[in-house]
Amino acid sequence: MDSFTFYNPTRVHFGKGMINMLGRELEALGINKCLLIAGGGSIKENGVYEDVTGNLNAHSISWTEGWGVQANPTLHKVRQLITQARDEQVDAILAVGGGSVIDTAKAVAAGFYLEDVWSIFRSEAKLEKALPVFTVLTLSATGSEMNSFAVVSNTETKQKLGTGHPLLFPKVTIIDPAYQTSLPKQQTVNGALDAMAHVLEYYFAVREAHATRAIDNSLLKTIVEMTDILVNDPNDLNARSNLAWCATLALNGISGAGMNGGDWACHTIEHAFSALHPHIAHGAGLGVIFPVWIEYMAERQPSLFGIWAKEVWGEPSIAMGLNRFRAKIKQWGSVLSLRDLGIKSEELPVLLDMIMSSTRIGGISKFTREDVEALLLLAF
Amino acid sequence: MDSFTFYNPTRVHFGKGMINMLGRELEALGINKCLLIAGGGSIKENGVYEDVTGNLNAHSISWTEGWGVQANPTLHKVRQLITQARDEQVDAILAVGGGSVIDTAKAVAAGFYLEDVWSIFRSEAKLEKALPVFTVLTLSATGSEMNSFAVVSNTETKQKLGTGHPLLFPKVTIIDPAYQTSLPKQQTVNGALDAMAHVLEYYFAVREAHATRAIDNSLLKTIVEMTDILVNDPNDLNARSNLAWCATLALNGISGAGMNGGDWACHTIEHAFSALHPHIAHGAGLGVIFPVWIEYMAERQPSLFGIWAKEVWGEPSIAMGLNRFRAKIKQWGSVLSLRDLGIKSEELPVLLDMIMSSTRIGGISKFTREDVEALLLLAF
Repeated sequence: MDSFTFYNPTRVHFGKGMINMLGRELEALGINKCLLIAGGGSIKENGVYEDVTGNLNAHSISWTEGWGVQANPTLHKVRQLITQARDEQVDAILAVGGGSVIDTAKAVAAGFYLEDVWSIFRSEAKLEKALPVFTVLTLSATGSEMNSFAVVSNTETKQKLGTGHPLLFPKVTIIDPAYQTSLPKQQTVNGALDAMAHVLEYYFAVREAHATRAIDNSLLKTIVEMTDILVNDPNDLNARSNLAWCATLALNGISGAGMNGGDWACHTIEHAFSALHPHIAHGAGLGVIFPVWIEYMAERQPSLFGIWAKEVWGEPSIAMGLNRFRAKIKQWGSVLSLRDLGIKSEELPVLLDMIMSSTRIGGISKFTREDVEALLLLAF
Repeated sequence: MDSFTFYNPTRVHFGKGMINMLGRELEALGINKCLLIAGGGSIKENGVYEDVTGNLNAHSISWTEGWGVQANPTLHKVRQLITQARDEQVDAILAVGGGSVIDTAKAVAAGFYLEDVWSIFRSEAKLEKALPVFTVLTLSATGSEMNSFAVVSNTETKQKLGTGHPLLFPKVTIIDPAYQTSLPKQQTVNGALDAMAHVLEYYFAVREAHATRAIDNSLLKTIVEMTDILVNDPNDLNARSNLAWCATLALNGISGAGMNGGDWACHTIEHAFSALHPHIAHGAGLGVIFPVWIEYMAERQPSLFGIWAKEVWGEPSIAMGLNRFRAKIKQWGSVLSLRDLGIKSEELPVLLDMIMSSTRIGGISKFTREDVEALLLLAF
């Protein structure tokens, strides 16, 4: 088990009706005015917007609204919202949405005090101050509601980069799983695949981290069980709750304790897919690349991948475990190839170049250009 | 899955050599002088004292020392150390030890600003201010290093009471598992039993909390596996690491998320054992009472206890699961009856009265006097 530091000061209020804690928390921290950041408007349809603003009103907290954050959120939008936050002199950012909205909120909170927010994504500047971030989660997937990371796409340079800083931990996160019962099936599945991928990025990194791998087995198995229920009955609130909590734990430090930072080759590779084609959902892209990565890497450390097959899937061989993993992705209505994601064969060289522009590809994978090329071909 | 709030701001530095983070953290928080609280002196024998004070010196942090905290720490000692902390005008408490030392440190930190520290244990006063607490863990067991609880014994009234407050979360905790390789076997076992008991107090509370129960299965199984290794080879650093992290997670909020606060009947009952006989180790007492509690409660909710037998022990029946649990406790050199703990049959009525003086016995157990009497007889 490797050395690690665990620190996660986000306060999570989890459960039906927990929105009532929002205004109280903002008030306790002396917040007068928020920038409420949201997506395309679904929160106006499912009652979440009404709950949030009703609670803000009840605590006399004013707000300005920044709408229109899309999947694979853009630097362009972040900059626009930073300007709005400054013009409106807000003292907090309130994200109401999924990972894209929350990542945008973190970037705005960080950029508020920076000359150029992109500089922290390019590791050219150090964050020293940020507005406090509060979140109301409406889609369990990225884990952003309880971590200090944000990923943003620069559509001009076609780069999708991440940043992280303790100042970006949300102060308070509200997770009401009832807010997710209206989600389309494929969004639920993409969320589940994203959460599974987060666990898997850590899973194979350090053989000796038994405690963490045992927890990771629990997370993976529970995510599969709950998603199985939800693809048939999206209104099962208890399955929503359990899936939601697993997705939060999948990237809040617990799933990676003692795992030396994990691998993250698949995330680096997937980021290129969605940077090239913003319509590709992050979870769907991960569902394509992860089984291929496991197949490719299992040659190097068969015994460790055998543990995964046995513990997560109850199968005696890696091949059978992979078979189960792929069958599950298909059964959930997701795809298994780059072709089915809508990527064309002539785009593979472009993707390869985009991926190879990263400083490193995988903490344990340590992929060369040849490795990535092979992976893309296998995934195609 | 029940609603819950998860909040745990303790920063944990985990791993060999992490003591080097201590002085840096104290300095960063502007601490000039600590009250270093410790037990009987074992930290002077195993090099921990030297590491700690060397690091404090390197960062020009001064300290005063308060020795002599014993297992089942006393209110008397807490009061003495509060006086010392005030006289010496410290601005932080540094616990170097196991759960007793850390609980004492929290009580001192809280009592520093109170007229009577016992008032918060009796729920007669509200904590509004406390000195910051830092800990260097030397025995994984109570989880106190990453939670906001403290338990203290009042030897005059023979009461063992707990308190909890967000102000009592340690600011920073150092867990170097190498510090535990010198522990006697039975202390390791008592620690493991204590950690298992913490998980079990939550395990049966809410049937629908699948995610948390899956994690709890992982913790219980990993604790058993690692303890099996350590009773044979106390120097296995990786087993120490994995056991240590499980013990921390067993009572930092993760093992009980959505479990409605858990049960805690066994802890209430065990506190009476060690209040009556301070030589009884908390973990050893729990090892006696928990199998009996499971046997007694399984009649009420057989399917839930069947899950435990299957998931933790791989057994198809509760009886077989219990058999495995008891055999394990015995194999580790711990005892299974009150008699073997050194309690006499004529003391049972005294214990019964002590236990019944609690406001409630078990969140799910909801034990009556008859229940507790039966349990004590079965445990004898």
